[in-house]
This record gives sequence, C-alpha cells and structure tokens, in this order.
Amino acid sequence: MDEIVIIRDVLEANNNVAHENKTIKDERNILMVNIIGSPGTGKTSFILRAIENLKVPCAVIEGDVTSDIDARKMAERNIPVVQINTGGSCHLNAGSVNRALKSLSFDNGIVFIENVGNLICPSGFELGEDFKLALANVTEGDDKPYKYPLLFTKAKAVVLNKIDMLPYFEFDKKFFYDGIRALNQEVPFFEVSARTGEGFGEFAKWLEEKYYKFRQSK
Amino acid sequence: MDEIVIIRDVLEANNNVAHENKTIKDERNILMVNIIGSPGTGKTSFILRAIENLKVPCAVIEGDVTSDIDARKMAERNIPVVQINTGGSCHLNAGSVNRALKSLSFDNGIVFIENVGNLICPSGFELGEDFKLALANVTEGDDKPYKYPLLFTKAKAVVLNKIDMLPYFEFDKKFFYDGIRALNQEVPFFEVSARTGEGFGEFAKWLEEKYYKFRQSK
Repeated sequence: MDEIVIIRDVLEANNNVAHENKTIKDERNILMVNIIGSPGTGKTSFILRAIENLKVPCAVIEGDVTSDIDARKMAERNIPVVQINTGGSCHLNAGSVNRALKSLSFDNGIVFIENVGNLICPSGFELGEDFKLALANVTEGDDKPYKYPLLFTKAKAVVLNKIDMLPYFEFDKKFFYDGIRALNQEVPFFEVSARTGEGFGEFAKWLEEKYYKFRQSK
Repeated sequence: MDEIVIIRDVLEANNNVAHENKTIKDERNILMVNIIGSPGTGKTSFILRAIENLKVPCAVIEGDVTSDIDARKMAERNIPVVQINTGGSCHLNAGSVNRALKSLSFDNGIVFIENVGNLICPSGFELGEDFKLALANVTEGDDKPYKYPLLFTKAKAVVLNKIDMLPYFEFDKKFFYDGIRALNQEVPFFEVSARTGEGFGEFAKWLEEKYYKFRQSK
C-alpha cells in the first residue's frame, strides 16, 4: 500500500506543476503539443517537417534520456530549442518542462514537446500541454493501439508516419484504426511521411486552426 | 532524498528475487535470455525465427503492458509460453518472472523473456537472466546507442533486425556500431531479418554454443 500512496503523491505533485505550466504558456500565447511515440518513430523529423509547413512561429522542447542529437538538428535550422536530459527517467515530467519553458525565449506560437521515446510512461504524466499527439509509424506494426492503449485513449491527434513504407510492410490499416476507435471515438487521424513530406499540408492546416482557435478563446 | 532511498529499496528487493530466479532456472537447466527492444522492433518474430533455427528446446515468457497477442503467436506454434501483463508498468520485474517461471512446465532448454517494448527501464531491472540481448532494427535509426546507452552497455549480444530494409533507410552502420563499441568492447553483433530469415543460422549457432557451455559448466 505504501508504494501506491507514494505514486499518487508523485502524480499529484506533477499535476500541480503541470497546472502552473499551463498558466505560463497561456500567458505567453503558446499552444503546447506533447508528442509521444516509440524510439525511432520519427518524432524529430516529424517536428521539422511540421514546422516547414506551418505559418505560425514554432519552438521545441527536446526530451531525451541523454544526448543533444535532436536539439542540434533544431538549432541548425534556427528553431528555438531547449534540451531536457532526464538522466535515466523514461518520460518527461512537469518540473523539467517548467524549467525549460522558463528558459525558452519564445511567445505567440506553437511549442512542440518531443517526449522521451517510449509508448508507456509519457502518457501518464501531464506536462501542462494543450494536447497529446500520438506518433505511430508503419514499420513498428499495426498492433500498437492494442498493446499500448493509454496513449491512444488520451491522444487528441494520431499521426501515422512512414507511410511511404506501406508497400514494404504488412501493415493492416483497418486493424490499426479499429483498435484506436475502440478507445477513442473522436480523435482525428493523419497519415504522413516525414521523409517525403507527404501529408504535412493537411496536418499543418489542422494544427493552425487549433492555434487560431486557442488564440481567439482568450 | 526520500525518493532516492525508496528507489534503492525497490531495486534491492528486485535483485533479491532475481537471485532466486537464477537459482530456479539453474536447477532446471534453463539458459534464460532477456530480450530488450523498442515497440515494434520485432521481438516476437525474432524469437519465433530463432526457435525455428535452434536445435535446443525453447520456451517463452511474454511481457506486455496488456494483451496476449504475442503469447498467442507462440501457443499457435506449440511453443510453451507464459504471458505476463504488467498492468501499466513499462518493464518486467523479477517478481513477475518468478511467478512465470514457476507456472512454466519446461526444463533443459532456452527460455526467451520478451520484455516490454521499451529501450529504457527494462535495462535497469535484473530478472535472474543469463544475459540481456539488445534487439535494434534498421527502421528506428542508427542513433539508438547514443540515446539509450544503458541497454547497449549491459547487453551481451546486439542483434540488428530488419536488415532487408537497409536499401530503403538511411542507416549508417558504422555510426551505429561505433556507438556501441564506445560503451561495450566485447559484445558480439548479429544482423538478421526476421521476415526473410537471413542471419538466423549464425545467431542460432552462437546461442547453442552458449547453451552447451552453460550445461557443461554445471
């Protein structure tokens, strides 16, 4: 029982800071998107392509256990970026995002949070984001919604990446989307290839609308 | 400080049970391999192909957050299998493997443990296994040793899966293997495709030798 109480306390402390993050980002007119996906699903290249296609200014908070490989890719393209290294933790928490937000000189736009590559724990920790985006991909197989249901239940957008690889993999789209629909009736689906750029026009249009609605709601 | 003490206690309790698991599996002449890789890296199809190629009897302990998709694939092929559902946990622990071992009617052979799809926390929890095997794949990219160093430091074998996809992905093998060698001077490398079967002859030969050495050492 002790363990359960401790976990509840950790989540409660996290949620308090997440609430503070939400206030900070709202005051700075930032729409914040928490991107969750497996290692190698293409989170970094997805963000780079999305930014290419968006008319709204963007910045990035990079989460990794260690290394700054992804943050350097952003900086090379003059995208404002802050790196969080979790040390050993398999997910970002609200505290580290709080510090990242405070050190990020950026307002009036979209902040992408690239969470640690992991389909499990990142879904359980609120960061103060506007919504979670699940980034799946063709090469990892069509059974992910059945094996990692929490992410697909909580996501407010599901993006299937690497669709240029569909001819080379046995990926049953119906099975994949049926698995998500059983968990989440409303979530919109997007199909993209971060390599070829396919599908990003539609996604960028949808995200811009989200951003303008967010700005109008204030 | 409290949090650190608690984590240490959890790991210590886990290690005690892992030690018991090691005694159990040694008494039953089982070589136990803990397979760690991303979601969708092909752990299940890797194990199926390995078993096809091995002359030694094999059984499987399947770890997933939820579902029994993978265990059913084993059972369909009459491979002895026990499923562990972690509920929400992102890694197997020694306690669940202890219960799985006790309910598995199998001796004198190799037990593959398919850990939860995750490159981070599974590396931190000893299960009583003989060794950890890191299963990477071409489609997830060549930077995994740099981003998830603990797994590649601890692994006693690294297998690169989906090599039939090398023509379609920018995967720099030198960068990948250099990253591992910087962490782990001794670990052997194998390249396979679970889809085509390529590379499994060599891997099976190596694993059989490991098994026979283990049996002789007793």
